[in-house]
Amino acid sequence: MDINKWEIFEASFEYNHAGDPFADVTLSARFTRGNRTVSADGFYDGGGVYKLRFMPDHEGLWRYETISNAPELNGLSGEFNCAAARADVHGPVVTDGTRFVYADGSDYYPFGTTCYAWSHQGDELEELTLETLKAAPFNKLRMCVFPKRYDFNHNEPPRYPFAGNKKDGFDYSRPDPDYFKHLELRISQLKDLGIEADLILFHPYDDWGFSTMPRERDLGYLRYVVARLASFRNVWWSFANEYDLMTSKTTPDWDEFFKLVSAADPSGHLRSIHNCRAFYDHSKSWVTHCSIQHSDLFRVPDWIKQYGKPVVVDECCYEGDIHHLWGNITAKEMVNRMWIGFSRGAYAGHGETYMADNDVLWWSKGAVLRGESPRRIAFMRAIFESIPGRTEPASGDHGEHSGLRAGEDYYLLYYDDRQQRIKKLIFPEDKKYRIDVIDAWECAVTRLGGTYGGRCEIPMPGKPYQALRATRI
Amino acid sequence: MDINKWEIFEASFEYNHAGDPFADVTLSARFTRGNRTVSADGFYDGGGVYKLRFMPDHEGLWRYETISNAPELNGLSGEFNCAAARADVHGPVVTDGTRFVYADGSDYYPFGTTCYAWSHQGDELEELTLETLKAAPFNKLRMCVFPKRYDFNHNEPPRYPFAGNKKDGFDYSRPDPDYFKHLELRISQLKDLGIEADLILFHPYDDWGFSTMPRERDLGYLRYVVARLASFRNVWWSFANEYDLMTSKTTPDWDEFFKLVSAADPSGHLRSIHNCRAFYDHSKSWVTHCSIQHSDLFRVPDWIKQYGKPVVVDECCYEGDIHHLWGNITAKEMVNRMWIGFSRGAYAGHGETYMADNDVLWWSKGAVLRGESPRRIAFMRAIFESIPGRTEPASGDHGEHSGLRAGEDYYLLYYDDRQQRIKKLIFPEDKKYRIDVIDAWECAVTRLGGTYGGRCEIPMPGKPYQALRATRI
Repeated sequence: MDINKWEIFEASFEYNHAGDPFADVTLSARFTRGNRTVSADGFYDGGGVYKLRFMPDHEGLWRYETISNAPELNGLSGEFNCAAARADVHGPVVTDGTRFVYADGSDYYPFGTTCYAWSHQGDELEELTLETLKAAPFNKLRMCVFPKRYDFNHNEPPRYPFAGNKKDGFDYSRPDPDYFKHLELRISQLKDLGIEADLILFHPYDDWGFSTMPRERDLGYLRYVVARLASFRNVWWSFANEYDLMTSKTTPDWDEFFKLVSAADPSGHLRSIHNCRAFYDHSKSWVTHCSIQHSDLFRVPDWIKQYGKPVVVDECCYEGDIHHLWGNITAKEMVNRMWIGFSRGAYAGHGETYMADNDVLWWSKGAVLRGESPRRIAFMRAIFESIPGRTEPASGDHGEHSGLRAGEDYYLLYYDDRQQRIKKLIFPEDKKYRIDVIDAWECAVTRLGGTYGGRCEIPMPGKPYQALRATRI
Repeated sequence: MDINKWEIFEASFEYNHAGDPFADVTLSARFTRGNRTVSADGFYDGGGVYKLRFMPDHEGLWRYETISNAPELNGLSGEFNCAAARADVHGPVVTDGTRFVYADGSDYYPFGTTCYAWSHQGDELEELTLETLKAAPFNKLRMCVFPKRYDFNHNEPPRYPFAGNKKDGFDYSRPDPDYFKHLELRISQLKDLGIEADLILFHPYDDWGFSTMPRERDLGYLRYVVARLASFRNVWWSFANEYDLMTSKTTPDWDEFFKLVSAADPSGHLRSIHNCRAFYDHSKSWVTHCSIQHSDLFRVPDWIKQYGKPVVVDECCYEGDIHHLWGNITAKEMVNRMWIGFSRGAYAGHGETYMADNDVLWWSKGAVLRGESPRRIAFMRAIFESIPGRTEPASGDHGEHSGLRAGEDYYLLYYDDRQQRIKKLIFPEDKKYRIDVIDAWECAVTRLGGTYGGRCEIPMPGKPYQALRATRI
């Protein structure tokens, strides 16, 4: 059997356990290629079936052997060949200093959006969301494992993550396999669209007790989720949305969750935790990158410096017109904030909260995008993905404003909502550059005539949302 | 002789001194009304004439008697009657807690602009500036006593404050009376237009040595300026523009300047000092109000709380299109920042820096206004001047955003660049309000139908720059 690199190997074992199939039976396997061995936990998938999943990250022959406290599941072995990755598959996203890259080394700039509860809306809306995403500029999506109860979110989800029901209560020790199969379907559909699933494991907007489970149930839930989902290359672990609003959990709890997932995940997916107000200490070793809610993108360099990790500002307010402060910035300001964040070396994300008669707002339920920012974000993504190679911050000597540079070969400088008619820049005296004026709102690139070098004045159009791109000749 | 209250009493004395008429001769006078006595210094006005000026602030009979080391000028006396103030004259502006009022108790909201060097441009431009101001919404103007040398300011002034010239140097001990007569003409013209002259005594943008005079000359200059100008009711003393860029002066120097002027000024004009970056300690007793350069108007409440004095944000960036960061915000942002500042209990000021072929930019040379903000500032001024009585901050329970209230009778709430379609407000249950939606950019007031009270949702137009005004019925 051949499994392409970064796809999912799955083995199923039938075993009808007389007692509690979740609590009583342990299952894991050692996956070995050459002298490298990786452990992966299995999980109970209902109907008397146990499963093992694994995402091979190296080509060649992999062997596995199971370990279980059930003799029928213990010592089972098998093998598969890991073939080359399929075309256009670059592997999971990993960090590289304060940047992200795909595992194959190719660039990854996260252009994220948020649809917290999109996978809890029923097939019709969920499929509409997927259709929308197909044409949208996003390659990362924040979404919750658990359903959500909040403003504009008063519909009951079609299914629940645990056995039981709202009236009689839930048995948090018994995950509902169908619930997770549905979640996996949605995650794999995102994978097919090239979208990273930034999976929120806990959140405070709860009506079912999932945010206040006993500690032991939290841990069991995390182990189950990792066993099921770690083989999806597009999964990121986001331990919480607004962890600081979840008063029933403490910092040691979050630390423990991080450590558990770090140890259990054979694929080492990205790990972060998102704040409302106070930041978690992103410098802790188990945090791979910062996931930040903050409206001031000019502060990005401080955070990069402080944490030395990639900085994703997942919430810098959303384009929309609701009464909440976090959800009523203009499309221009949404795009502007994303440009500021990216031009300062971070990654700011999109969200959309326009009021709707049916209470279907993109930020939570998905469906359709109605705002003016997405097409500008598509343009922006093309600009950033065309950056040749790696960049470093270029504030200071090249303009007071936000900027990136690649040595002395390339500069991308953004001037946010300012409307200057000229910009004074100082390039190396012995080098020549072509300059493009980029209108981030009108999505236009205008190449200036002639070449520039040394101390020069660049004519600008005297309106907001302009960037300059200087490319060495 | 009758002098109206808050106008200028002036007495002239001819005396031809054989030596240095500035340094050798002292002159002051005690002005007495009933059992109140105020001292005012006189000054040498050239041509063998010494002058005394005084602004009476109470009606009735005032007597004065001179004191001089020159026998010919000593012990001279006289009297005048102070009559009622002329119509529309409200006296100098004074502070009242964290607010300003005119001396007669009527409201004063400073709607300021900046024309640093307007009075050093020659009559043609200066008269054009006055024409512009006549139709403009401003009732305060920041201006420098000394000429200015900086970007867009390379023209030599038509006259100098001291004897001498640029080539041979200046004698800082000999003020040029004609220079100050010209300055007085411009200040009195502003007075006639109802504009406070926020007079900048020192500044760093110097090409003549006026920013680096010896300490003794600084003190002599200050005494001379106070003697000449303290009788103008519309004078405010601004000790410096960007004091922190004047590296030749220390904090003790500034302290001493404040103390000298506080002691010498018989009319107790307002005193402030303006920063570039670091604030002077505005809590010092001789500072009457904060004069601040800062771009973040949301921080206004912190400064009001910290200093307990009126806060004027004279520079929050200027409407314009120059390359400097402080001079290229849009008209919308200029108006927006002023609204935020005012709605948070401070007073933010205007400036304009549009590039011009002739290098005449309003912010420095005056002449004409070309921006889009002034007519919105006129509208804004009308809104604020119609506030009934005194207000206090109304953030918190009435919206997350900027707001003022007058008890439970009146609310003015501003929502800056947010575009919400509804705003949820909680009014007292037992009171009813009429609500106006104010479009700060379109300069439109729309009264909502019906009345509001208790917990309510206000429909909003879903675009930026909106305010709500609730007036109790």
